[in-house]
Amino acid sequence: MDHLYALIMAGGGGTRLWPLSRQRRPKQMLSLVENRNMFQAAVERLDPLIPLDHTFIVTGREYVEQLRASAPQLPPSNFIVEPYGQNTGPAVGLAAVHIQHRDPRSVIAVLTADQYIADQAKFRSVLAAAADLASRGYIVTLGIAPTFPSTGYGYIRRGESLGQVRDFQAYRAAGFTEKPDAETALHFVTSGLYSWNSGMFIFRIEQLMSEYARQQPVMHTILQEIGSTIGHDDYDETLGRLWAKMPRLSIDYAVMEHADNMAVIPVEMGWSDIGSWATLFDLLGGDQNGNAICGPRQDYIYLDTRNTLVVTDTAPGRMIVTIGLENIVIVDTPDVLLVCHRSRSEDVRQIVDRLKDAGDVAHL
Amino acid sequence: MDHLYALIMAGGGGTRLWPLSRQRRPKQMLSLVENRNMFQAAVERLDPLIPLDHTFIVTGREYVEQLRASAPQLPPSNFIVEPYGQNTGPAVGLAAVHIQHRDPRSVIAVLTADQYIADQAKFRSVLAAAADLASRGYIVTLGIAPTFPSTGYGYIRRGESLGQVRDFQAYRAAGFTEKPDAETALHFVTSGLYSWNSGMFIFRIEQLMSEYARQQPVMHTILQEIGSTIGHDDYDETLGRLWAKMPRLSIDYAVMEHADNMAVIPVEMGWSDIGSWATLFDLLGGDQNGNAICGPRQDYIYLDTRNTLVVTDTAPGRMIVTIGLENIVIVDTPDVLLVCHRSRSEDVRQIVDRLKDAGDVAHL
Repeated sequence: MDHLYALIMAGGGGTRLWPLSRQRRPKQMLSLVENRNMFQAAVERLDPLIPLDHTFIVTGREYVEQLRASAPQLPPSNFIVEPYGQNTGPAVGLAAVHIQHRDPRSVIAVLTADQYIADQAKFRSVLAAAADLASRGYIVTLGIAPTFPSTGYGYIRRGESLGQVRDFQAYRAAGFTEKPDAETALHFVTSGLYSWNSGMFIFRIEQLMSEYARQQPVMHTILQEIGSTIGHDDYDETLGRLWAKMPRLSIDYAVMEHADNMAVIPVEMGWSDIGSWATLFDLLGGDQNGNAICGPRQDYIYLDTRNTLVVTDTAPGRMIVTIGLENIVIVDTPDVLLVCHRSRSEDVRQIVDRLKDAGDVAHL
Repeated sequence: MDHLYALIMAGGGGTRLWPLSRQRRPKQMLSLVENRNMFQAAVERLDPLIPLDHTFIVTGREYVEQLRASAPQLPPSNFIVEPYGQNTGPAVGLAAVHIQHRDPRSVIAVLTADQYIADQAKFRSVLAAAADLASRGYIVTLGIAPTFPSTGYGYIRRGESLGQVRDFQAYRAAGFTEKPDAETALHFVTSGLYSWNSGMFIFRIEQLMSEYARQQPVMHTILQEIGSTIGHDDYDETLGRLWAKMPRLSIDYAVMEHADNMAVIPVEMGWSDIGSWATLFDLLGGDQNGNAICGPRQDYIYLDTRNTLVVTDTAPGRMIVTIGLENIVIVDTPDVLLVCHRSRSEDVRQIVDRLKDAGDVAHL
């Protein structure tokens, strides 16, 4: 494991937890389930598998100071800063050339900053197994056992068995499907052959780079040119000049979906992407009436209320009262109040899109 | 009409519109339907029937300055101040002895400060008719045509006809029933013989006083003693000393329900007591989706929301978003948020009772 590195993608400004998540306070900065924010959890759950100086972060200019403040134990130079967001293909590539510069034999685990993992020991075990498999020449994805026929996740189909790796069964990845329709999702889940794509990948650096070279030659050339200036005076200028030329593609689309030697290790570790208020509610559970409150402690009084989630982000002293509600989500922030049926929490995106269209920067 | 006086009861701290109405901002100080508060509306709708110096207010110490500021056109001395609330029987009696001191031949219309009347001309017309009937020796109540079998109002049964008075039919009042059960209320409404008790009464002062003397001798003696000190140095001391001895009874229970020569004039004038959020919602109506917003203008965005009322009392710039709601009332104040099913708005009282039990003065 001497060459194992973590690369935490922390550049997103996820809008599905709006109005709690905002452009200036992205989802990974929220403390929803644990008493630390999701980014801190993403860093801390690596200990003791991956040392701090092997832990890299890729993020945007607008978030880097918040993130450094959240994880002051990390070397400041391990935060790789994108000039601006160009999707995850360029972001992973940029950080990868930095890690390659440090250690040309590195094995990199690309991880997410804004997810919840209940069983952290299992997470480290599966990372170690994935690193072993990556050393044998595979690009390994962590697959999540589906708990319902979600139309919001990507799915990975298992191919032939690659046998047991440490405590886990590994398989060739036989195909990726992005966000299927409801019927397809149901078929996937009942077949037992599919895992959700967690967005976490483990690979040897030279293998990733050869995939960039084969599948994304433009991106690869730019990355090589930026990489050649690391540690030199012209790094910032080169990065700034070339970044605009980066094709705006996700890492899945740019590289992973058509890479050679893709493997999947299915794992059950209490994973959740907390991708909507309904998902958060599932994770939090409720009291004897199915009600939950999340956020700074506020007085909450309810009468005949069931399966209702109250999320607060307001100064102490505010009181929240609900009467006769069922399956409602209330998100109370200083400048936005959202009241939403539990079944409709995905539609928060529509509101965010409207605000973007209207240029309502204050509420985004 | 030279001897006609208005006595507006403005002492209540109604809790049914909590959390907008509070102990320090009672219901009559709210501007919900008109661009003036309900107390201002109660004063202004008397013009030109009753002159300003014939308009008296009875209220508590804690409200008198707010009320004077709301109606600066009234003579300050026309605000009669109770040392503290002892229910409406003593309150009306106290103000009545003041008006009697001014004009022993006065005809007094006891009116409410926290109700809405759409047809103000009709209101003045019925008051004039009631004053005529009062001059003939009746204690006249204004009856409201019931629009649904409410269990929250008192009902007045019509007795024999007293013929036409101006544009109105008048009847003897054959009986009062306080807040009936649902079955009785339905019977009352379908019979066509009952009106809601608006809480507005018109009478000659000496007739009221003789009813106090006959039915409430303790109250009457105290009122006479206080009345004898009006304009003298010992008024405040006498009032303070005797007020505690007042029986705590409503004017309905103390006098009206068993008075001789009670009459009722049924009138349809678009009356509403705005006694709950649901009542306010009925009065406001909704847009094409049945949704309404009330209060300082805030950004309100809704998606698939029907028959939902949003009441705001927060600083500008706050945004309210609802998704997938139906029949919900949202009341958003700086320190309390209420989200309540439309059918449950009467239960706000239960919350207020809990706060009282808990001594939570800040939120009351």
